[in-house]
Amino acid sequence: MNLYENLALELENQIRSGTLRYGERLPSIRVQSDAHGLSPGTVVEAYAWLEERGLIEPRPRSGYFVSAPRAETPTPESDVESVYLPPEDPSPEELIHALRQAIYDPKILPLGIATPAAEFFPNAQVERVLKQVLREEPTTLSDYIYPPGTIAFRRAVSSRYRKLQVESEWKDAISTSGATESIGLALRAVANPGDVVLLESPTYFGIIQLVRTMGYGIYEAPLHPTDGLDPEELARAKRKIGSRLKAAVLVPNHSNPLGIAMSDDRKKELVLAARKTGITLIEDEVYADLSFADRRPKPLKAFDPDDSVILCGSFSKTISPSVRAGYLLNSRHHEALFAQKSTVSSGVSTLAEETLALFLKDGFYERHLARVTREYQRLLGLYTSTIIQSFPEGTRVSRPAGGYVLWVQLPGEIDSRSLQRRALEKRINIASGVLFSPQGAFQSCIRMNFAFPFTPQIERGIRTLGALAMK
Amino acid sequence: MNLYENLALELENQIRSGTLRYGERLPSIRVQSDAHGLSPGTVVEAYAWLEERGLIEPRPRSGYFVSAPRAETPTPESDVESVYLPPEDPSPEELIHALRQAIYDPKILPLGIATPAAEFFPNAQVERVLKQVLREEPTTLSDYIYPPGTIAFRRAVSSRYRKLQVESEWKDAISTSGATESIGLALRAVANPGDVVLLESPTYFGIIQLVRTMGYGIYEAPLHPTDGLDPEELARAKRKIGSRLKAAVLVPNHSNPLGIAMSDDRKKELVLAARKTGITLIEDEVYADLSFADRRPKPLKAFDPDDSVILCGSFSKTISPSVRAGYLLNSRHHEALFAQKSTVSSGVSTLAEETLALFLKDGFYERHLARVTREYQRLLGLYTSTIIQSFPEGTRVSRPAGGYVLWVQLPGEIDSRSLQRRALEKRINIASGVLFSPQGAFQSCIRMNFAFPFTPQIERGIRTLGALAMK
Repeated sequence: MNLYENLALELENQIRSGTLRYGERLPSIRVQSDAHGLSPGTVVEAYAWLEERGLIEPRPRSGYFVSAPRAETPTPESDVESVYLPPEDPSPEELIHALRQAIYDPKILPLGIATPAAEFFPNAQVERVLKQVLREEPTTLSDYIYPPGTIAFRRAVSSRYRKLQVESEWKDAISTSGATESIGLALRAVANPGDVVLLESPTYFGIIQLVRTMGYGIYEAPLHPTDGLDPEELARAKRKIGSRLKAAVLVPNHSNPLGIAMSDDRKKELVLAARKTGITLIEDEVYADLSFADRRPKPLKAFDPDDSVILCGSFSKTISPSVRAGYLLNSRHHEALFAQKSTVSSGVSTLAEETLALFLKDGFYERHLARVTREYQRLLGLYTSTIIQSFPEGTRVSRPAGGYVLWVQLPGEIDSRSLQRRALEKRINIASGVLFSPQGAFQSCIRMNFAFPFTPQIERGIRTLGALAMK
Repeated sequence: MNLYENLALELENQIRSGTLRYGERLPSIRVQSDAHGLSPGTVVEAYAWLEERGLIEPRPRSGYFVSAPRAETPTPESDVESVYLPPEDPSPEELIHALRQAIYDPKILPLGIATPAAEFFPNAQVERVLKQVLREEPTTLSDYIYPPGTIAFRRAVSSRYRKLQVESEWKDAISTSGATESIGLALRAVANPGDVVLLESPTYFGIIQLVRTMGYGIYEAPLHPTDGLDPEELARAKRKIGSRLKAAVLVPNHSNPLGIAMSDDRKKELVLAARKTGITLIEDEVYADLSFADRRPKPLKAFDPDDSVILCGSFSKTISPSVRAGYLLNSRHHEALFAQKSTVSSGVSTLAEETLALFLKDGFYERHLARVTREYQRLLGLYTSTIIQSFPEGTRVSRPAGGYVLWVQLPGEIDSRSLQRRALEKRINIASGVLFSPQGAFQSCIRMNFAFPFTPQIERGIRTLGALAMK
């Protein structure tokens, strides 16, 4: 227990028991600190603690007074909200809300969302690098850096992509607060509200929400379950929609939810098709570094001599979801992207950018990726085989080439919205397939996360899911 | 010098002198570390350093090789861009670009932008609190927290505002990446593109840019130089514009550029007028804590029983521009604000939010504010008296009640755009008044920052400005 807590609890008892009464003035900081042999700072902390709890209140220039008692609430107040169960016929928003609320409850099995177990983030190294930045550059905390961001971070990003055969200068990179912001800025730079954006189907519901809330129409193009988007879909969409079709948001490497990666040949064809149709490709690379192959797959942008792909990414899925920085990489649209970024931020998170830049530079990142992808690949095998064993016959499972989510198609007429709800009643979080389609297709599919250690609880949870899916 | 630098420089010399030739393979990490008695990690660092400089390159599974020599550029490359001088008849964008570029050049006097000297940020305390967060909550780095943000930060914000007589629960607060993002999200929550937004005139150019880029029309309402916005302006604007006038973005406490604060009575009237006209007030509080008065002025939202004010703010002007978090505070529009925030970010900067929350809780913040505002007030006197002494007769200077910018109106026909340019030629950065009006009014005004220690260079700079303004 901290020093201040002793004093605070003593005073709390006196207030609750009535020894100190409503409106009574507390001893001054000095008197109190003398009386208890505590430092004035400790007394200040104790008073702040009591104030925070509504037990005492400061009055200007007169010190602290006992607050009026409030009626006790019958049940204890708690920060953790009780489990949110979506209603019987839930909307996508209700399902997403349920999905996200569940991650804060440690008693719910985390198969629903796309973030790995804490142990798969390199926390100790990030902390070390962060402290190194603070030590070596003491002004980092007070440095005001405007968009397009710190030079160190922009260099780190572009030099990483140069190794993946992307022609890029550091000046082409713009820092953002994450990949979602990157995609939104890219869309604003190339399309006006009312224009149409092509999305893969299935695709991450955050992208669908973003495109919809920004006021764009959506063209839903089918994603082949092993090969990815057929490049001919671009011409097909263009014929149907015409010039209002301005952009496509794609996840060519380790699609969320399928986990698949497109072949290099297909990527080349896709960029060529984009050039022919005049559609700007917005490429989301958040999962691309988490490859199970010997070599990390190249981005679309590696096959893009005309600079028609806007590359978006972040390190929230690999280094830290808490020390955040994302990026945009493109030269042709640089002015428009920069103008958009400048309107949403007056300054950037210098500390986050410097930390990530140093982390990337020092080779930690490659070693970290090697470690976690080996582990994710092993877990994928365990999760997949348990699913196959315990789910209804005829269940199909995607074959991720990277990332940490997989896509399960259940046989028959099962409603995955109801399955998500029933699973949550059993304290298991999964994502209904309908969230991954603007039209609400994929009713019989679910997305599952496999980046948690394969504990007996997880194994039991998967078997329970299988049993629920039989009904 | 670091250990790795010795090795790196030795190898660089060998490469530049031709001892190591193009295409030659470097010794392996192990061999090199044995040969020099260095740890393998040090050799890796040295090789990374050389690679970063394009002197060597890794080849898959074969080690490092000397890169092809590149022709030397005639002048040394530098990260610092040379001074950007806007053209003779500069656009607002060109003036803003010049203003912002200049802050990265330490040889330019920083009177142009609205951020204080590094020493006025509490870097050491922020660093201490940040390390405390990492120590006490080791999972902070891997915690994935969705919008509306961490409970600790939202509690810290709402409890601060409760002390300023704002009725608010922590659940009403939404974290953002800064005040600019807050304002943008508030606008999207209450107005559609094509709608009209009332702005004070003069007001911060970042707000003008934001509102314009978001596709809103702008109604420019005059700001009284001592009293602030006349509440009747709302009804007047409503009569002219009609129902398309949806919102007003206001800086009632320590306006940028004037530095003035509205009286409580005026604030009450303004909120009443907003209720009558159905205009949502979006209140920007970024400078509000930097008050020179005994008591920090209350926000508009303290006079807002109907919850028609959306309060926006951040700690980038007071605690750190680098560890960033901003906020939105409003209950009535909470769902719409949350929906907007969810589309621009999938996650929040947990580390930044936890750090700021703890900083606010521990009473550091109040002590820090007391220290810097005393200093800013002292500096304001020095700057103002020097301006009055050295600027042309008839010059008027605003009387800031807080913050760290002031507004100078020059007599006669002077063109402040040209003055900004000529000052920059003398390595002095100031902001032309035209930037603070959507129509480009205030041609004879400039905004100056007074939050830098009053050194002989600053004093000389102000006198030089005065001489330039005579021409």
